[in-house]
Amino acid sequence: MSVNIEDYVASIPGFPKEGILFRDVTPILQHHEAFQEVTNRFAEYARKVKADVIVGPESRGFIFGAPTALVLGVGFIPVRKPGKLPRETISVKYDLEYGSSEIFMHKDAIQPGQRVVVIDDLLATGGTAKATAQMIEQLGGIVAGFAFVIELEGLPGRKVLEGYDVYAMLEMSDS
Amino acid sequence: MSVNIEDYVASIPGFPKEGILFRDVTPILQHHEAFQEVTNRFAEYARKVKADVIVGPESRGFIFGAPTALVLGVGFIPVRKPGKLPRETISVKYDLEYGSSEIFMHKDAIQPGQRVVVIDDLLATGGTAKATAQMIEQLGGIVAGFAFVIELEGLPGRKVLEGYDVYAMLEMSDS
Repeated sequence: MSVNIEDYVASIPGFPKEGILFRDVTPILQHHEAFQEVTNRFAEYARKVKADVIVGPESRGFIFGAPTALVLGVGFIPVRKPGKLPRETISVKYDLEYGSSEIFMHKDAIQPGQRVVVIDDLLATGGTAKATAQMIEQLGGIVAGFAFVIELEGLPGRKVLEGYDVYAMLEMSDS
Repeated sequence: MSVNIEDYVASIPGFPKEGILFRDVTPILQHHEAFQEVTNRFAEYARKVKADVIVGPESRGFIFGAPTALVLGVGFIPVRKPGKLPRETISVKYDLEYGSSEIFMHKDAIQPGQRVVVIDDLLATGGTAKATAQMIEQLGGIVAGFAFVIELEGLPGRKVLEGYDVYAMLEMSDS
């Protein structure tokens, strides 16, 4: 029996602020059949682009990236917010709607020439994804592709990631 | 060939502050054989105590809890910091060394009578674990046990969780 992933995405109007329709993936996690289907699709994509390692940004990227790495039999690398990684790191700053953010990876996380797939729940502005790609490339890795459960329509994510391979299971609006 | 998990824990003196020996689990994630072994042990424990669902606190609990739930064929429930969960939540406040924190779960995350295993990387003071147990019980769930990669010796974690079943793969000092 096939699972329709969209049935396991909750849509919450007005979160985190007026005018936004928030797409919530927690029901996917709560229902094994949906979580299995999503992981299968992530793994299938990562195999197709010949991933040697999976990278997931804090913190929903951990929930989807870590199981995918386990299923594939490859390593999982967390991308983290400031102050979380104890060993030598590299980082990239990027702009948010208000202010800016900085994300980090351990310097020994990626070996030169490794093919990397970046997994996260949602592609919106693409800021985190693009910053993650910059770190991977600084470490000599090859960004084999980006994979998301949901791509939000009408936001610049795919344009920001131009030149990279981008896979999204669902396209949804954010309003 | 058996995997010695301890070989994949990095120990970093002086992080996040002077006098602390930080135990870093990221090398486990980076090496498939270690990540597989840790997940197998989490899953074996969860089967033993008959878990119906896995709960993991933000954010390293996501990295270990989500794959375990997937392997077991049960749901995964994230425990999150303020402002992250979009639907109706319950929360518990608890004290930290300086100040306090509040963590959240969706109200529909646990069904009454479900047996829940809480998974995280590390047991230290037990504050997050205890607060998580309180939420699970408020929702009518049964805390079947807690499972960690590392238990820090000389900290009150196990005492704080007195009356609950607690499993840790490694015991290590924090200095």
